[in-house]
Amino acid sequence: MSAAEVVTQQAVNPYDAYRTALIEAGLLIPSGVRGLYGLSGVFEGIIERFERFVTRMGVHARPEVMRFPPLLSRKTYLETEHLEAFPNLMGSIHTFLGDERQAIELANKKTAGQDWTKDLAPTDVMLVPAACYPLFPTATGTLPPDGRTIDLRTFVFRHEPSDDPARMQIFRQREYVRLGTPDEALTHRNYWLLRGEEMLHAVGLDVKRVVANDPFFGRGGRVMVATQREQTLKYELVAPVASEEKLTAISSCNYHVDHFGRAFGIKTADGEVAHTACIGLGLERIALALFKKHGFEPRRWPARVRDILEL
Amino acid sequence: MSAAEVVTQQAVNPYDAYRTALIEAGLLIPSGVRGLYGLSGVFEGIIERFERFVTRMGVHARPEVMRFPPLLSRKTYLETEHLEAFPNLMGSIHTFLGDERQAIELANKKTAGQDWTKDLAPTDVMLVPAACYPLFPTATGTLPPDGRTIDLRTFVFRHEPSDDPARMQIFRQREYVRLGTPDEALTHRNYWLLRGEEMLHAVGLDVKRVVANDPFFGRGGRVMVATQREQTLKYELVAPVASEEKLTAISSCNYHVDHFGRAFGIKTADGEVAHTACIGLGLERIALALFKKHGFEPRRWPARVRDILEL
Repeated sequence: MSAAEVVTQQAVNPYDAYRTALIEAGLLIPSGVRGLYGLSGVFEGIIERFERFVTRMGVHARPEVMRFPPLLSRKTYLETEHLEAFPNLMGSIHTFLGDERQAIELANKKTAGQDWTKDLAPTDVMLVPAACYPLFPTATGTLPPDGRTIDLRTFVFRHEPSDDPARMQIFRQREYVRLGTPDEALTHRNYWLLRGEEMLHAVGLDVKRVVANDPFFGRGGRVMVATQREQTLKYELVAPVASEEKLTAISSCNYHVDHFGRAFGIKTADGEVAHTACIGLGLERIALALFKKHGFEPRRWPARVRDILEL
Repeated sequence: MSAAEVVTQQAVNPYDAYRTALIEAGLLIPSGVRGLYGLSGVFEGIIERFERFVTRMGVHARPEVMRFPPLLSRKTYLETEHLEAFPNLMGSIHTFLGDERQAIELANKKTAGQDWTKDLAPTDVMLVPAACYPLFPTATGTLPPDGRTIDLRTFVFRHEPSDDPARMQIFRQREYVRLGTPDEALTHRNYWLLRGEEMLHAVGLDVKRVVANDPFFGRGGRVMVATQREQTLKYELVAPVASEEKLTAISSCNYHVDHFGRAFGIKTADGEVAHTACIGLGLERIALALFKKHGFEPRRWPARVRDILEL
């Protein structure tokens, strides 16, 4: 790349441009940390309305609703292979377990600008890496004859500080998860891939479907990437958010095969290892895609979109 | 205490009894960690309805709505005195920043049952200790002439694993925060103390007002406790939740004097250090108090309560 090209790229960096515009409009409130923002009432309102749309679109499946907080049992975390596959994204919660004397040392280190974090100890909890992780250990055992369909929404954490406003360190995933036979799981994944496309088209987003992979860590991860793509286990629905050229995944539809069924001892009614699948909707990213497409003032959005979102 | 008394106490431990009942009713979903639960759709629905009631009761103040995620900038955290006052409650987020070789060592330690957490490094973020912490650094500078009133809702973390279902490690606080002159701040605190009582009475909760203090750590903290109580800076609205004898704070009304104004350089329009105050409503605790008072089936709650909550 020539120096002139570098300068041009910097001048039109779409991530900085869109992030700055969102902050100036008051939709994002900067925190001083890359990828961590407060949201305005208008922004949060779009997420609330979109969530109600998701609820209406899933009501026929009569899903069980569960709402997990942003924390996961450390024991559950270790029963998954997240540490092996995505160690760079994890969030481990540490606290101070010492006595009064040690607390004074801790505070003195802070005052002196020294590293006080080595005085902390790990707690029993981690940040949730994906919305369905807290669900699986609660499903250990045998499923009912038709399996289960669960409606989830969870704050999930990925340590990947970024200037792209769509790449937040913590954000909400809304999911419909299916636990059942291989056929039930795959049917769910394929159904929601279509339905997800329909829903996002209906609110005016130009999504397209792509075969995708999780960002497995390191060289060893490349084998997992290849397998996941060959078996077309993961599709993403991508749309323009900050960049028109490099599209952003705003939803993903995943078939986990028996990965979680095996890890958490989940069986179908006929005693086989359960298969699982989910659609995940990235709520902050969908709102960002809507603001990009229709502008920053929801009252000026197209009537059809306002109708669907009951704005 | 005699052995017989100990046995009786254990037999009637109201925390175990209420927690077990909530789990059996499916309202709380255990995670394997004390004080960490998933919530059912019914439980979450009560929180949603109560929040709409809070919104309606605050609409006349035309608050600015801000929604912060569960994470706080580590730099902001260190600008408060949380580390000095409540080190035992903090949640510091650590992750893996190493290369591929170190990732293999990390995974090997996990497999061998060794401590792998020492291989992690602190990130730029902490869990939010109280809903208004993320707000203050965004208000640095000069307030408008009438100050500001903010509507917040945030997941907050306190590392205090407990068998009391009302003492969760992570839960949501809804807050109205006032930034302004001493008079504006104190008026806000006192207004919402009355209005909070009214609101909670209206949904059938037998709250009473008590002078309270934050749980400052250690012997040094006792001075802060005494000062806070003498100056009646903190009131709590307490109600029966698990225990009828030992009441639980479901809301608190706090006057921070110039503590946060000074820490974050917030000034009133006439150049004085701003004073701040807030009402915080513990959403999970309020739902737990409602289930305790009216039973586990919201459709059987008193008509008056159902009307107010639009159930």
